[in-house]
Order: sequence, then C-alpha cells, then structure tokens
Amino acid sequence: MFEQTDRTEIAKLGEFGLIDHLTKHIHIKNESSIKGVGDDAAVLDFKGKKALISTDMLLEGIHFDLAFTPLKHLGYKAIMVNLSDIYAMNGMATQVTVSLGFSSKFSLEAIEELYAGMLLACEKFNVDIIGGDTTSSRQGLVISITSIGYADESDIVYRNGAEEGDLICVSGDLGGAYVGLQLLEREKQVFLTNPNIQPDLEGKDYIVERQLKPEARIDIVDLLKKLKIKPTSMIDISDGLASEILHITRQSKKGCKIYEEKLPIDPMTAETALSFGLDPTVCALSGGEDYELLFTIKQADYDQMKHDVDISIIGYITEESAGNQLITKAGNVHDIKAQGWNAFTSTQS
Amino acid sequence: MFEQTDRTEIAKLGEFGLIDHLTKHIHIKNESSIKGVGDDAAVLDFKGKKALISTDMLLEGIHFDLAFTPLKHLGYKAIMVNLSDIYAMNGMATQVTVSLGFSSKFSLEAIEELYAGMLLACEKFNVDIIGGDTTSSRQGLVISITSIGYADESDIVYRNGAEEGDLICVSGDLGGAYVGLQLLEREKQVFLTNPNIQPDLEGKDYIVERQLKPEARIDIVDLLKKLKIKPTSMIDISDGLASEILHITRQSKKGCKIYEEKLPIDPMTAETALSFGLDPTVCALSGGEDYELLFTIKQADYDQMKHDVDISIIGYITEESAGNQLITKAGNVHDIKAQGWNAFTSTQS
Repeated sequence: MFEQTDRTEIAKLGEFGLIDHLTKHIHIKNESSIKGVGDDAAVLDFKGKKALISTDMLLEGIHFDLAFTPLKHLGYKAIMVNLSDIYAMNGMATQVTVSLGFSSKFSLEAIEELYAGMLLACEKFNVDIIGGDTTSSRQGLVISITSIGYADESDIVYRNGAEEGDLICVSGDLGGAYVGLQLLEREKQVFLTNPNIQPDLEGKDYIVERQLKPEARIDIVDLLKKLKIKPTSMIDISDGLASEILHITRQSKKGCKIYEEKLPIDPMTAETALSFGLDPTVCALSGGEDYELLFTIKQADYDQMKHDVDISIIGYITEESAGNQLITKAGNVHDIKAQGWNAFTSTQS
Repeated sequence: MFEQTDRTEIAKLGEFGLIDHLTKHIHIKNESSIKGVGDDAAVLDFKGKKALISTDMLLEGIHFDLAFTPLKHLGYKAIMVNLSDIYAMNGMATQVTVSLGFSSKFSLEAIEELYAGMLLACEKFNVDIIGGDTTSSRQGLVISITSIGYADESDIVYRNGAEEGDLICVSGDLGGAYVGLQLLEREKQVFLTNPNIQPDLEGKDYIVERQLKPEARIDIVDLLKKLKIKPTSMIDISDGLASEILHITRQSKKGCKIYEEKLPIDPMTAETALSFGLDPTVCALSGGEDYELLFTIKQADYDQMKHDVDISIIGYITEESAGNQLITKAGNVHDIKAQGWNAFTSTQS
C-alpha cells in the first residue's frame, strides 16, 4: 500500500556512513547523557538515582506487517513500546539504544523514514538515542531497542507490591489496538485480492492509531506524582489485561476480582469488534498492545483518583486463595486466564 | 555437523514458561544489580559512578553460520563481543540484557545450549543477566545483547584522546579469528560435498578458538589499572586493526604510523593464512573479530609497558596532516584504509 519513489542503496554508504547519516541530527537533551553515539559505549550519569533498563525485540512478520505499517509509525511505536516499560516502573525514560537489521530490499530512504519515527518519539518524550548497531539481515527487518531511565529508589513501583483490598486501576481504554489490527488485516486481504480497491478505514482513525501509533502513558506517571499517589504495583499492558493482572497477582501472591462492566472500552472498539463477530470484553482482556498502565492503589487513595476520567477502577485485589476472577455483567464468575498474544504459539514456521 | 538428539518444542512452554525456564539458574552477583529479570525493567545502582551502555546485534547468516558454530560457543561469543565494548572504555562490565528471536526449528534443548554458553561467559566475567526478551522469528536466529558497566569518570577512556607522539599498543595477536573462519568455511564446503568426511581441524585449535570462542580482554583493563597507566584512547578490535585505528585518529584529529614488522601475528595464523594464499598482514589489518584492545599511551608510560609480552607497541600517533600510514617490512609506505568486514557490502540478498 506504500510506495517508495527515491531509492538510494545502503551499501553505498557502508555501516559507518549509515550510522553517521542517521545520527547526525541527534541532539542530546538529558543531563544524564554524558556521551552518546560514537564510542564503544555510551556514558550515563544518574547521580545517585537508580537506573532502569528494559529491552524489546520486534521482528518483521511476527510483530509487524509492513504491508500496512508505515515505517515512520513503526519507528515511533518501537520506541513507545520500550518507554512504556520504564513508565511502568514509575520512572522517567531518558535514553534508548537502537539496533537495526535489514535486508537490501530496504533503501536508505526507507530506513530514514523508520529512523524519523524513532527520532520523533524521542523528541516528544525527551529521550536521547545514545547508541545502537546496524547490520544487514538476510531476513526481514529486525528492531531491538533498549530503554534506559531513572527513578528515586522510593518511587520505584514493582509488580509484586499489591495488597489485599487494593483497587485495580487501568488508564485509557482497552482492546482498541487489537480491533484496529483486525481492521488492517482485513483491508490487506481486500487489497491482495484486488489492488485497485482503496482501503476502507474511514471513521476508524482512533482504533487504527491505537494499533499503529500507541502513546506511552508518561502523563499517568506525571499525574500520579502530582496526586502524590504511589501505586502498590504497576505493569504496562502489552500482552492484554488478563495476562498482565496475572503477573501482578502471581508476583504479589494475591488474587483479584475484576468486573466486566468496569472495563474501559471505547464505543468504536466495541462496535467494530462486534462487526467482526468478536466479543469486546475478550478484546479488552486478551487483545494486547494497548500500552496502557495497569496499577493497584491503596483504598485510601481512592478519593484522589476517582475524578480522573482517564483512569478506570476495574476491581480489587483479594487473598491468593480466592483466585483470579472476572465477574461478568450477568453476574457469572469466570477464572481469568492469560490468553494474550503468544509469539511462540501463534507462528509455526 | 552438530546433531541434536532430544527435542522439546518451545511452543509447549510459551514465552513466559521459556523465560522462567532459562532464567531460573541466574544468581545475581553484582551489588549494582538491585532487581534483575522479572519486572518491566531492571533496576541498577552505580552509586555515583558513571554507567556505560553498549549494544550489538548478531544475525544468523550474517554474523554466524550454525553449520560450524556450536550454539554454546555462539552464546559465549555473543556475550564476549558485548563485554569487550565496556572494557574498551576502561570500565567494568556488570550486567547484560539478552534478547533472542528464533524459529520453531530450534528446540528447547538448542536454546538451552545457547543460553548455557551465555551463562558460562557471564559467570566467568562476573556479569549478571538482568533482563531480555524472547520471541519467535520467521527468519533465523536473532541475538541482541546490551551490555552495561560502570567506571569512575576519571578512568573512562574515549576514542578521541590520542595525542601526537603517543605509542600505539595492541593486546594479544591479530588475524587469528579471520583465518580460523576461513578454515571452518573450507571444512563446511568439504562436508557439504561429502558428509562422510570428518572436518580436518587438527592442530588448528588456537585459530579455530579465536573465531568461535574469543575472550574479552578484562585482564588488560586490570593490568592497566595495576600499572597505573590510563590510555589516552582505546577501542576494541571487532572490524580489524585498520578500521579501528582510523576511528581513533579520526576522532582524535590525528594521524598515525604503524609498522608492519611490529604487528603481532601468531605463527599458526601466518602459516594457515599463507596456505590459503592470504597475506597474514592483511588478515591482521582487516580480518576483524579478534576482540583485542587497541590503545594509545603516553611515551612516559613506555617503560612500564615494555616488558609485557602480551602487549605489542606497533607504532605511534602523528599530526593529522601526516595521514594514516603503514610502513611495510620493505620500508614502503601505504595509506591505511578501512577494509574491515562490512555487513552491508558483504551480503546482497
């Protein structure tokens, strides 16, 4: 669906030429970035704060489909996915390293697009690209990003701190990224059948953007700081709510009760899910890739939180023996199971 | 050449099961590793020291050939390559994150072998695996590692500090890894032609190990500390001496003179290179993958260094306008050009 007009071969520049070309527009923004790209290692200084490190790998054909993913969006999303992990620790993200592998089917212009999306995300979230690696690949596009940030020790929120009675909160709304993906996949099939038919995504911008251009929730981390609320546990939603709440309850040695009617689902997500014959609740629980924050707070913090329209309280933490339960709108009780997207069972090649 | 007998499918475990399985034997060794695997991000504390971060990506078919690379060696080498970058900053390596992508042709046992090599390297070099990512791949094996370390600010050695008159030093010997690779490639061709012929690597252990199982030179960093010598510049040799010395002189805005007769080349490397019709000097200059340290020292430090048999002084730094020159054994002068292994021109797929 996307065409490239100009085309410069990467081999013309070589690895060092390419790195120089891509990194020449980087301006270091963070005081903690002492030395960025250009030496054997970057040098950082967190001045007594704790350093936070997270890493994610994105592979073509597994995590993204270039048939409907513009490279600039992909670059943006690749950074977001990684920053999200730092925010999920209640920390500030300050640096990333970016490693790229790509075959010669990618022109310099294509890689520039990808990198432009990364730079845009870094610019917006005040993050420095401080290093990386580029190599050719016999396969498809390979993206590996490590994100780095910091926090005061007393601010860090782990997955294992949830206590009985804590309220379970989630930012934004759920399921949109998954339903957006269904839409893009359908239009891809239509396009493959007849390349003259233009994709019909009209009025679906919101859920398409949820899939292609998620935004990591730094604003929630800022809000929590402003409200002086320190969550007792936190995780970002990459694999789906069900999978993530189970990480929290398993590591906290607790159980949970979640109410279906409380799950935040955007009307367009619900409507589009139904048009695909999908249950919106299942999309919210197991769709994944929403990159919202899931966290637990003490009941004492409820009054502070209840007026924020962008945070939903969806249930509470129970004792471990009570298990992990979903209470449906009809009042039925189901065990919550992780049916999140599993990169190992979804592909058999 | 390598056969797997037992075979467990990864899909049986799923991503989280696999991560649990691989990481259950990790015991955190460094005081700076506050929280390792198991949350959104790892938490580190460098207590006022500077943090060092480096990253490398290794792709099947580009950086390694599984036809002659045992997975355990590959895991070991993948860690070494990354630690080497931290040592090249004159720092101590303390943590790594490990991201792996692999297709379903890899069994659990195969991934365990790879991971065992990584754990062995980390054990030996006192490094903690603190995080990572695992995913399926449609392609081959993908390995992305980020290494983390620390140093006092006053100890960090960059590439840009070489001064006119400084002596150029290199640890160990050069070219062995490249010649070892030629040997392995030849035996692979023999094997492909007739699988009944056993590989003939007898007596070639040293150069085969240089290729398959390099050792990062932490001992040189320790030695420099003991001798109270702080190099004026340093880099590790991954792409070949020629390419690396040009990084130093370009970033230091200087030139250099290197003497062919001073290049440290192991007799087995020289002899085997000649049997392939290769010039040992070219192998030393452009072969790459030796993971030795190349550094410059002040002339005043010469007396301290001259007795170390594992460090060769191969030339000196000149003013920039004098260029980068190799003085051959016959007394001829050649410009040094980076003809190191280039991942973008070596593959056209």
